[in-house]
Amino acid sequence: MGAKYTIGIDYGTLSARALLVDVHTGEEVATALYEYPHGVMDTYLPDRKTKLMPDFALQHPQDYIDALEYTVSEIFRKTGLSNEDVIGICNDFTECSMLPVDEKGDPLCFQKKYKANPHSYVKLWKHHAAQDEANKLNEIAKKRGEAFLKRYGGKISSEWMFPKIWQILDEDPDLYHNTAKFMELADWATMQLTGFERKNSCTAGYKAIWHKREGFPSKSFFKELHPDLENIIEEKFNNVVYPLGSVAGQVTKEAAELTGLKEGTIVAVGIGDAHAAVPAVGITEPGKMLMIMGTSTCHMMLGEKEAIVPGMCGVVEDGIISGYYGYEAGQSCVGDHFQWFTENCVPEAYEKEAKERGINIFTLLSEKAKKLKPGESGLLALDWWNGNRSVLVDVDLTGLILGMTLMTKPEEIYRALIEATAFGTKMIVETFKEYGVPVKELYAAGGIAEKNQLMMQIYSDVTNMDIKIAASPQTPALGSAIYAAVAAGKNKGGYDDIYTAAKNMGKVKELYYTPIKENVQTYESLYEEYKKLHDYFGRGENTVMKKLKKIKERVIYVNAR
Amino acid sequence: MGAKYTIGIDYGTLSARALLVDVHTGEEVATALYEYPHGVMDTYLPDRKTKLMPDFALQHPQDYIDALEYTVSEIFRKTGLSNEDVIGICNDFTECSMLPVDEKGDPLCFQKKYKANPHSYVKLWKHHAAQDEANKLNEIAKKRGEAFLKRYGGKISSEWMFPKIWQILDEDPDLYHNTAKFMELADWATMQLTGFERKNSCTAGYKAIWHKREGFPSKSFFKELHPDLENIIEEKFNNVVYPLGSVAGQVTKEAAELTGLKEGTIVAVGIGDAHAAVPAVGITEPGKMLMIMGTSTCHMMLGEKEAIVPGMCGVVEDGIISGYYGYEAGQSCVGDHFQWFTENCVPEAYEKEAKERGINIFTLLSEKAKKLKPGESGLLALDWWNGNRSVLVDVDLTGLILGMTLMTKPEEIYRALIEATAFGTKMIVETFKEYGVPVKELYAAGGIAEKNQLMMQIYSDVTNMDIKIAASPQTPALGSAIYAAVAAGKNKGGYDDIYTAAKNMGKVKELYYTPIKENVQTYESLYEEYKKLHDYFGRGENTVMKKLKKIKERVIYVNAR
Repeated sequence: MGAKYTIGIDYGTLSARALLVDVHTGEEVATALYEYPHGVMDTYLPDRKTKLMPDFALQHPQDYIDALEYTVSEIFRKTGLSNEDVIGICNDFTECSMLPVDEKGDPLCFQKKYKANPHSYVKLWKHHAAQDEANKLNEIAKKRGEAFLKRYGGKISSEWMFPKIWQILDEDPDLYHNTAKFMELADWATMQLTGFERKNSCTAGYKAIWHKREGFPSKSFFKELHPDLENIIEEKFNNVVYPLGSVAGQVTKEAAELTGLKEGTIVAVGIGDAHAAVPAVGITEPGKMLMIMGTSTCHMMLGEKEAIVPGMCGVVEDGIISGYYGYEAGQSCVGDHFQWFTENCVPEAYEKEAKERGINIFTLLSEKAKKLKPGESGLLALDWWNGNRSVLVDVDLTGLILGMTLMTKPEEIYRALIEATAFGTKMIVETFKEYGVPVKELYAAGGIAEKNQLMMQIYSDVTNMDIKIAASPQTPALGSAIYAAVAAGKNKGGYDDIYTAAKNMGKVKELYYTPIKENVQTYESLYEEYKKLHDYFGRGENTVMKKLKKIKERVIYVNAR
Repeated sequence: MGAKYTIGIDYGTLSARALLVDVHTGEEVATALYEYPHGVMDTYLPDRKTKLMPDFALQHPQDYIDALEYTVSEIFRKTGLSNEDVIGICNDFTECSMLPVDEKGDPLCFQKKYKANPHSYVKLWKHHAAQDEANKLNEIAKKRGEAFLKRYGGKISSEWMFPKIWQILDEDPDLYHNTAKFMELADWATMQLTGFERKNSCTAGYKAIWHKREGFPSKSFFKELHPDLENIIEEKFNNVVYPLGSVAGQVTKEAAELTGLKEGTIVAVGIGDAHAAVPAVGITEPGKMLMIMGTSTCHMMLGEKEAIVPGMCGVVEDGIISGYYGYEAGQSCVGDHFQWFTENCVPEAYEKEAKERGINIFTLLSEKAKKLKPGESGLLALDWWNGNRSVLVDVDLTGLILGMTLMTKPEEIYRALIEATAFGTKMIVETFKEYGVPVKELYAAGGIAEKNQLMMQIYSDVTNMDIKIAASPQTPALGSAIYAAVAAGKNKGGYDDIYTAAKNMGKVKELYYTPIKENVQTYESLYEEYKKLHDYFGRGENTVMKKLKKIKERVIYVNAR
């Protein structure tokens, strides 16, 4: 038998990427990228007339169909490969990105009558207009003492499935009632290949409050949210959930024509994009935490049991690797932090120096920051520019930096911000440990892990742990390809389990980061101070950040009248 | 009798300025400026070979003589005035700037044998190399329970007279023993006109621990510092102190030849530069606080009694206006703060915009910051980039800012820094009030008061007080001219008391700032939060700032080895 391949498709925020992977060696043979023509719609619908309310973030589902067609056929064009040799396909998707569809599974926005209705489009993960519904949902769940809350750090995010559905019901009951199903995009994209829905355990668990043993929240809970929601699961959702790596179906004739795939090719159930990265670095067992470091950081880990760790984003049995509890935590401000800093706080002289030397501003700042020893700047920051996702789960917290003198330099602030995010990670790691989920090794993937050596060394020094770096620059797509190989099975040239598949196809770089002893010591002292500030401002002793936000809101409100 | 004039000379850090003032109207008739050729010497002596230790800040006394000669004769050249019509002269000087002299009053650095000896030169006010001596002095004074400490906020600064003298004794006992006198420059400059020393009550009180009733510290105190210091006052100082506005002497023949002044012209005793500004805005009574706003801010005020206000810089009977207790407080980081901010934190795009519009960066930032309402940024800062002078008196405190989000803009930070300095002023005002020294009105002088309308409005809103602005751009020189008129007396065309003199010659602008009610309310809420942070970080509950400084020092020390 010759080489066999799987395809992983990663549907990101602005583009989708297909990746062809050699199932035996894990070699990434070819890739194709498609940028969504509609991008993220946050001001107008495509008609350029229908204005969107603040905090809306929509997408057009046609973009995904076009991306599927283009990227997969482009892979075949590029490689000249026979579709016989592609034994499976799987897609990951940003999560929770959701969509109302009709009986046939077609988006309501494809219907003429709904074309100008924002609620008929995809609500992207970062659609934040369902905050009211999320607040009410959390209040009710808390009052009822719903056990699920503690699996999600005490709070259901407005980014997740039910607040988004509830927003539609609140704002457009007619559209709500005319919706046959509300679908997670990871499942909808899979359905474009198979013709029918199979819900995956990852996005169901992390974004739709599903539990392997307890199922979805109760009817009485949903009823208390809104009478019309009582039977949401049976009527408009679907309560059958499939573990990752299981078969979602086979490529239909239509999908084969669209993509060039062979009809009947095995399709694995979809998966959330962050979670797909875990097997892509070879993690299939507890104790290894993967940090996906981009604009924000997502921490993923496996555990033997369902521990309730305060402030995590979620724990889901079979949520990442079947047989384990998948833990997720997060930091909401990482790459974004440095982007903000360079846009708002870097002086002209530095920009000039970077230009003259033909390097970008991040490289210049890193170069200067690298010359500093830990503790040398005298600065300390709390990385809450975008709230705190873990372990405080509080969007109303804000950033803090202290220790400035008249000698403080931009690179010192830059380094302090990096260190703050590293301390935030250490706080997450320590909390996991404290609550019985051991963390022994760190892995990192994403743009920052790939490029920012200074930052990775700081993370290693702060956490006092080795950090391995993903070898693939497209870990989610690789992870999907791995799951596709598992769904295809050994008979077809794939694998019968994710452990063997990840061992063969997942990979990290040879280079890894290891703690520098003297830095570790200094960072231990600094972390003690970070922790004190973290608890003082984060756990309610001084609520100045919230008060300032309230004053700000009041001032803006009064002056808008 | 035709118009009569006095001359005030203001010896600043980088230049000296003479100002000719019409005694009757207060009109500023002519001015002349002289930049010191040697400037501030902080790396080498003028020989360019003798290297100075860190924290040294010296000056060359020849520069002052040249400044005296040039500026006064330039006034006569410019105006064509007869020296008959100049009835008095007075100088103010940066304080404490001090100098070792020989029996004739000539600087030791004029002697060939001392030319290459840094300790023979002027130690400028900002010479910070006597910190060890200041620390030891404070420790001993505290142990002995010296009553004077509480008149100076509990600490004698390393910038003041006795730490500087002690440093000379410590580092060069030979030079110390060959010094006939250690002189405050305000008095030495006066002596250049009169030929002999008359110590003024202002710099003696604020910088040399002199008290009108108790005199200088005791012999036993000085002895405990160092046996050789036991008789410092009698041997090398001078314990006769004259009130401000009193006659120091008359212009000598030599000084007349040097300057063009008439021999015999009345010379008033010298004064510290900041204090000279008080009568220049017409303040001669309690309840009115003058803020001199430059790189740092100096707060001056009169009181009826000697109250001990925690954390002030000093209270001196007759220290500013005879008959009252002169209070001084300070903020060590005001103009410096904004300078630091624009140099280190303002992005290229803003610099470009300022350049394109032909305005400076401060104007642009002010313009943008002005559009913000109080509280709108959600930011709050502690203005401790250069420690806290009042009311915490702690150089080891550092800056803090909190409330940042990914939407935070440079102008919001800029405004927050301004507000922080305003809160710092309010803290000083409130502390004075609390300890029985009423503050009813604010006056402001200096570059910032003159130019920065946004800042002055914020100060008015934060303190909920009217702020009057000095009409003269050279208040210290004007103040000196006022004291010269008092020393000359009514008989000669001047005044017999400072009250009448200041009323006629001191002046404020017609424009003044008055609080905007809605802003006052918001700032009251913000001030509550400022106060909480101020006390938490400033009064020892969380010593993170000091710990970071210690870590920083250790890291720098270890890596320098």
